[in-house]
Amino acid sequence: MAQQHLEPTDPLARPVTGEALAGYLRSQATEFLRALRQHRETGAAAGGSQESVAAARALRRSARRISGSLHTYRPLLDADWSEGMRPELAWLSGTLAMEHAHAARLERLLAALHRLSGSAALPAQTPGTTPPAPGGAPPAPERGNLTVGAAKAGALLDRQLTLARTRAHSTALQALGSSRFHAVADKVAVLASEVPLTAAAATTDLGPLAAAAEERLRDAVAALPLVTAGSPYNAEALVHGLSPDPAPHPQDAPWHQVRLLLRLHRYAREVLYGPDGPVDVRLLAAGQALDRHRDASEAAAAAAQAARTPRIAPATAYALGVLHADQRHEVEAARFAFQQSWQKQTVATA
Amino acid sequence: MAQQHLEPTDPLARPVTGEALAGYLRSQATEFLRALRQHRETGAAAGGSQESVAAARALRRSARRISGSLHTYRPLLDADWSEGMRPELAWLSGTLAMEHAHAARLERLLAALHRLSGSAALPAQTPGTTPPAPGGAPPAPERGNLTVGAAKAGALLDRQLTLARTRAHSTALQALGSSRFHAVADKVAVLASEVPLTAAAATTDLGPLAAAAEERLRDAVAALPLVTAGSPYNAEALVHGLSPDPAPHPQDAPWHQVRLLLRLHRYAREVLYGPDGPVDVRLLAAGQALDRHRDASEAAAAAAQAARTPRIAPATAYALGVLHADQRHEVEAARFAFQQSWQKQTVATA
Repeated sequence: MAQQHLEPTDPLARPVTGEALAGYLRSQATEFLRALRQHRETGAAAGGSQESVAAARALRRSARRISGSLHTYRPLLDADWSEGMRPELAWLSGTLAMEHAHAARLERLLAALHRLSGSAALPAQTPGTTPPAPGGAPPAPERGNLTVGAAKAGALLDRQLTLARTRAHSTALQALGSSRFHAVADKVAVLASEVPLTAAAATTDLGPLAAAAEERLRDAVAALPLVTAGSPYNAEALVHGLSPDPAPHPQDAPWHQVRLLLRLHRYAREVLYGPDGPVDVRLLAAGQALDRHRDASEAAAAAAQAARTPRIAPATAYALGVLHADQRHEVEAARFAFQQSWQKQTVATA
Repeated sequence: MAQQHLEPTDPLARPVTGEALAGYLRSQATEFLRALRQHRETGAAAGGSQESVAAARALRRSARRISGSLHTYRPLLDADWSEGMRPELAWLSGTLAMEHAHAARLERLLAALHRLSGSAALPAQTPGTTPPAPGGAPPAPERGNLTVGAAKAGALLDRQLTLARTRAHSTALQALGSSRFHAVADKVAVLASEVPLTAAAATTDLGPLAAAAEERLRDAVAALPLVTAGSPYNAEALVHGLSPDPAPHPQDAPWHQVRLLLRLHRYAREVLYGPDGPVDVRLLAAGQALDRHRDASEAAAAAAQAARTPRIAPATAYALGVLHADQRHEVEAARFAFQQSWQKQTVATA
């Protein structure tokens, strides 16, 4: 029944049990170890090579999947082991994610500044490669002060986010060399061959647990302001855009929460259907909309934060204000996109 | 045929000729004179009383209608008289419109700042009444510098637009006392009893001329980027939002042009159908969307202009940047609203 709910056109013929979970965890653990080996071999320069970036992504990817499966299918696993493992995996994937997040945020903000200034006067960044010297591209002198502002804003964001990224890189390197990390890696190495299932796991149906994960997602989505989100140009995302609160908009939090629950639901499905299972493209689209929501939300916050830098020029601050609002519009656009894809999904599975 | 195109459910039984035009022009001229008398009686203080504001609006309203009818139905009217009259009416309604435009722009921008700062710390403006002392409301000291920025941006816009409005008021008073104005008023007084129709006007069908006005509108709409406008969150309106050009966005011009052509089409219909004719609500909705487009476009330009004020604080500039982007977003929302109402219209009359 739960499986029918998940995929009405392709119901599973028989209950999926703990053996499928064990197989999934073993393969993700193997993937984790492979990525770790690759990461060690490809070096650790800040920014790093393409291979090293891909390896770090693969590490995070498998850590998230192991952690998510431990959460959704908790009753089938040794409780002490599971409870000890999850926070360590969360710490690891969180630490590894920071460097990439800063690089992606800078890329997003510079691309937006390019679009907004309609000029090629901004630093030609390629985040993900070695960081260029900050402020490397001087603003073209014949342009008006607002475009100078855009170039200065770009240079300021470049400095701040490159610094943050460099720090995140050092933190990640330290983490990967720490005894804490080695303890996690050892546990994952054991997991690759030996999954601590409970005695009952072999005959326990995973379906109801996967359905519960889906239910948590649906409940959280039901609490979202989807009617507003589905009405274009509702101007909600920029409300309080000039409020004094330096923290990210509280209105974003429920969307971030749905993003996490959607991911858990997706991983729970992967366990049920296996590596060659059907891909739900609507689920992917909804997830991409929520990723975009998170990225735009954090980029908007970074622009607002940069505007608090002491002694910046008014033209720089103006450009950062335009940029902040632009990214909050992106937040609103992402909510609209999520609403559209979720609506299709609900109609399709009703 | 033209009438069927205009109003398929209510075709006019017989051709409407020059007599209807004469009746329309006489009644608009009478309205003009009534409004002028009322305006003189209700005084001329800056900001003015509600009655004086209403009288000025009625003056502009009838001036626009006379001018528009002279344009659309030109072949039925004495050419020399008509060509002498139109620029004078345009000058008059343009001059009278400025004071109201500055007041409405300030109101729109302060309302947006209120919304964006989610606070009551901004000057409690009531544009349309006597202007308050600039910067009358001090920012609450416990708020962060961005909200201080919003309050300062509000005070700056208040100063600049109140000054512009005061100047526009003086200019309008001078205009109303000028010999140029008295010459127009005299001509309108004659028009109230005697419309200079051509000899053929009494038997000329107005239909084809009204249809030509509608055709000009349709052609201009067909040249608009409606596919883009109908796709929510296309982010077109803010492209070049940081470009160095201080002039309003060139991308707005075709929309402003459609706004004028839509108004001409509406007035042409009023002549055909008379004062008790059917109101096309879809046409009204499309016109309101274009009014909103124009207002938001000019408000965005005013925010950008204010950001060029020398020696403003970075927090003020930041708030003006957010405000500019917010109003450009309004521009985009208005285009979407126009696209939606126009689409309905096209389907309904197809």
